[in-house]
Amino acid sequence: MTKSDRTVKSLNALPRAVLWDNRTLRILDQRRMPRDRSLIACHQVEDVFECIQTLAVRGAPAIGIAAAYGLLVDLFETRLPLTQLKQSLSDRAEYLISARPTAVNLSWAVNRMMGVASDKFGDTRELLERLEAEAIAIHQEDIEACHQIGDHGVALVRQYPNVLTHCNAGSLAVSELGTALAPIYRAFEEGVKVHVFVDETRPLLQGARLTAFELQSVGVDCTLITDNMAAHMMASGDVDMVLVGADRIVANGDVANKIGTLNLAVLCQHFNIPFYVACPVSTIDINTESGADIVIEQRNPTEVTHWKGEQISPDNINVANPAFDVTPANLVTGIITEIGIVKPPFDESLRVMEGKT
Amino acid sequence: MTKSDRTVKSLNALPRAVLWDNRTLRILDQRRMPRDRSLIACHQVEDVFECIQTLAVRGAPAIGIAAAYGLLVDLFETRLPLTQLKQSLSDRAEYLISARPTAVNLSWAVNRMMGVASDKFGDTRELLERLEAEAIAIHQEDIEACHQIGDHGVALVRQYPNVLTHCNAGSLAVSELGTALAPIYRAFEEGVKVHVFVDETRPLLQGARLTAFELQSVGVDCTLITDNMAAHMMASGDVDMVLVGADRIVANGDVANKIGTLNLAVLCQHFNIPFYVACPVSTIDINTESGADIVIEQRNPTEVTHWKGEQISPDNINVANPAFDVTPANLVTGIITEIGIVKPPFDESLRVMEGKT
Repeated sequence: MTKSDRTVKSLNALPRAVLWDNRTLRILDQRRMPRDRSLIACHQVEDVFECIQTLAVRGAPAIGIAAAYGLLVDLFETRLPLTQLKQSLSDRAEYLISARPTAVNLSWAVNRMMGVASDKFGDTRELLERLEAEAIAIHQEDIEACHQIGDHGVALVRQYPNVLTHCNAGSLAVSELGTALAPIYRAFEEGVKVHVFVDETRPLLQGARLTAFELQSVGVDCTLITDNMAAHMMASGDVDMVLVGADRIVANGDVANKIGTLNLAVLCQHFNIPFYVACPVSTIDINTESGADIVIEQRNPTEVTHWKGEQISPDNINVANPAFDVTPANLVTGIITEIGIVKPPFDESLRVMEGKT
Repeated sequence: MTKSDRTVKSLNALPRAVLWDNRTLRILDQRRMPRDRSLIACHQVEDVFECIQTLAVRGAPAIGIAAAYGLLVDLFETRLPLTQLKQSLSDRAEYLISARPTAVNLSWAVNRMMGVASDKFGDTRELLERLEAEAIAIHQEDIEACHQIGDHGVALVRQYPNVLTHCNAGSLAVSELGTALAPIYRAFEEGVKVHVFVDETRPLLQGARLTAFELQSVGVDCTLITDNMAAHMMASGDVDMVLVGADRIVANGDVANKIGTLNLAVLCQHFNIPFYVACPVSTIDINTESGADIVIEQRNPTEVTHWKGEQISPDNINVANPAFDVTPANLVTGIITEIGIVKPPFDESLRVMEGKT
């Protein structure tokens, strides 16, 4: 029995972001969660594009998986000749990658699919079945990586059961167990009395809307807080560890993650609380030297000034809306990956790890 | 010309929280600001009570001023005999204090008014005119204290013109110049190129709704950020100083202020940025020894889970909602008061200052 075959009964209630259901791609619409939890059936590639661009599906790995399946929607029914099918796949690949050009996993997954498509095939069915198998493999590998991150991180949660997390690095962003939440789910399953403080994570409230929902859906004890309450909770002695995901980790160990992560890392140092990052190895970008080389995406000011279309702040106010910040390596206690926990000095340990993969 | 008589032309546009206008008390309704900026005319003492209880008027000094005038509404028209008038004042005092029992300035202002009322008066008009003069004096003294805080703090803003502030310690919470914002307004008036990062201040968004509005209304350059962006702005070198108000400062210099203040103080220490608190001397509670003795008010969870009546987070989620946190004295660079800037060691300097007042 491989790890990914394991039956995780108590975690069965976890929501799934992406489903490949009898050759129909269904995407959980995260835009109006947790109130509205409808599945979008993607019948055309345009539906997939819209889901990715409008953040119905978010989280770099989940986007990659959605795009891998997304290349195939409706192609099993439309019986194109082989040459036309390959052209259609190539057009779709370019189109889907353009939905969110900065998400590394999106282009990675699509390019991996197109690598397969470039092989020689006897007929269209053979090509499509091979591609379907590849998309399922991408999805399964992601599930497996999350399980392994959980396995490597569970001892930390046993030791530090009162965890604070930021944004959503759970089932909804990745697959099944998520990254930062995987060690928490594993410990919960073992019966560890875990408690999670969930930062609401302004401006888009992924903590309040998604992480709180995920944890609650399987019964993990959690408390929702506004982002500015973290220091108070730490000063009160209620936080043993901070555990977050990552958007990108560079060669020296600097971590780009959702805005607010750096806040937490500084607080952890002050209050002498371990600060761990969990992510698959694919998030580690060994070709970028330091965090100073990471360009920080500025998002639409209306994410800050408006809530569900209604304006909070005065008209024409200046707004900063960086999507993420960079936590310097010296504030990071360790990085939990599917091949183990990487410890400082990261400029050495990340290179050693890179050699193993 | 006294300081409070000074013409502050460029700051004339500052909103006023409380107006005593031809013996009518008008309160700026801050609940729906900045969208809706209507004045509530209080014709009955019940109107004043409701304004205080529902936070139409907020900020400890502003509440005290509203209550001082509030004792008098409609009494100039209803020609009660002296004994009945004194009884009515006594009933009103008790009633208004009960609107928000934890706000120190509310009971302080009402008790000061009742102290005056306990004197001997020849007729009702004499009593009412004496009380009106006392309410105006309370208001004027507050305006004066804010001006003096501005005068004492302006050199800091000249030296550190890129300021980050939290919540609203401006005109809307106090009078005219506010406390934390007073040095900023003073510097702006002098022509200093000041820039203010405004923390939106979850959960009630006093920064986004009130501080951003105040600063914008007089033309102070400002940028609205979510609370979790502060570390990123500091790491980017864009913040020279943090300047906040206070709800209570105790004998050892520990500062209770709006939740999120401790976050900022820790970040300031890490990034080597001065952290200043501005408040009138009346906020300093020399009879309480340390921050550990301050009971932290837990407010309604719906402030976190709902936005304008609409639910953000899943049903039945646990929520923490402490209204304020305690910043330990060792993280405070200085306290700007109307009698000067108090510096560490606070356990000594605050006692010396207390002796001067």
